[in-house]
Amino acid sequence: MDWMLFIVFFGACAAAASTGAMFQPGAWYDSLDKPSWTPPNWVFPVTWTVLYIAIAIAAARVAPLDGSAMAMAFWALQIALNTLWTPVFFGLERMKAGMVIILALWIAVAGTLINMISLDLLAGLLFVPYLIWVSIASALNYSVWKRNPNS
Amino acid sequence: MDWMLFIVFFGACAAAASTGAMFQPGAWYDSLDKPSWTPPNWVFPVTWTVLYIAIAIAAARVAPLDGSAMAMAFWALQIALNTLWTPVFFGLERMKAGMVIILALWIAVAGTLINMISLDLLAGLLFVPYLIWVSIASALNYSVWKRNPNS
Repeated sequence: MDWMLFIVFFGACAAAASTGAMFQPGAWYDSLDKPSWTPPNWVFPVTWTVLYIAIAIAAARVAPLDGSAMAMAFWALQIALNTLWTPVFFGLERMKAGMVIILALWIAVAGTLINMISLDLLAGLLFVPYLIWVSIASALNYSVWKRNPNS
Repeated sequence: MDWMLFIVFFGACAAAASTGAMFQPGAWYDSLDKPSWTPPNWVFPVTWTVLYIAIAIAAARVAPLDGSAMAMAFWALQIALNTLWTPVFFGLERMKAGMVIILALWIAVAGTLINMISLDLLAGLLFVPYLIWVSIASALNYSVWKRNPNS
């Protein structure tokens, strides 16, 4: 793996990650009616740290390969949508707009995985936990949106 | 140019662009002491629309080329930082954090331009107006930060 590539891709992940530090779940999120399976708050930064390392490794492995253009386009799309979700959900407290963004993110992550796995099996597999986690996050976003129609 | 590639890269730009609609300059920004050369508010969405089309075209041209890995890494970095700036500046009203992000964005845009121009001259040239605009935006961010120490 080219470490310079990893560093630049990880920089994009760091930009996305910084939203978690700057737009934190506060009194508004704490007050929402949440489903019983909601993970405790500390799980989120831990999970995201691992996922960001995994997807930066995947990008650094795939970027130099022939035929990686569409995988790189989807990788760029998912990191932009990933950066967008937190400010909209926690900053603006807009659960419906958050739902639209996270569904677009799910499609972008699936698109990246599909385009990567045929080029590099390990890179594709590194995206599987990310897709699972975004599925869980989508379900959580949907659930809190429906449980809190007036928030 | 591959239109499917353009559409996915433009989708990433649309994610960045949506921050301009959701985190608008309001009473806080209007009340700031701004330099005489501050562009009127309507200039920003017009300029960004043109720039987003230009950088999505550049990405779609370069992505399929041999040796495009680092250009794609920097392209992903710049679109994540671009998505991040507006919520931090207009949402959190944090001018110093905005300054850090926009300087990182400037470096990412320059990095994309340098890596693209050796692969495809037109793609590199399509990034020149973007670099100029981010330079102006950086100067504006710096100026309003320094002029409004208590905001």
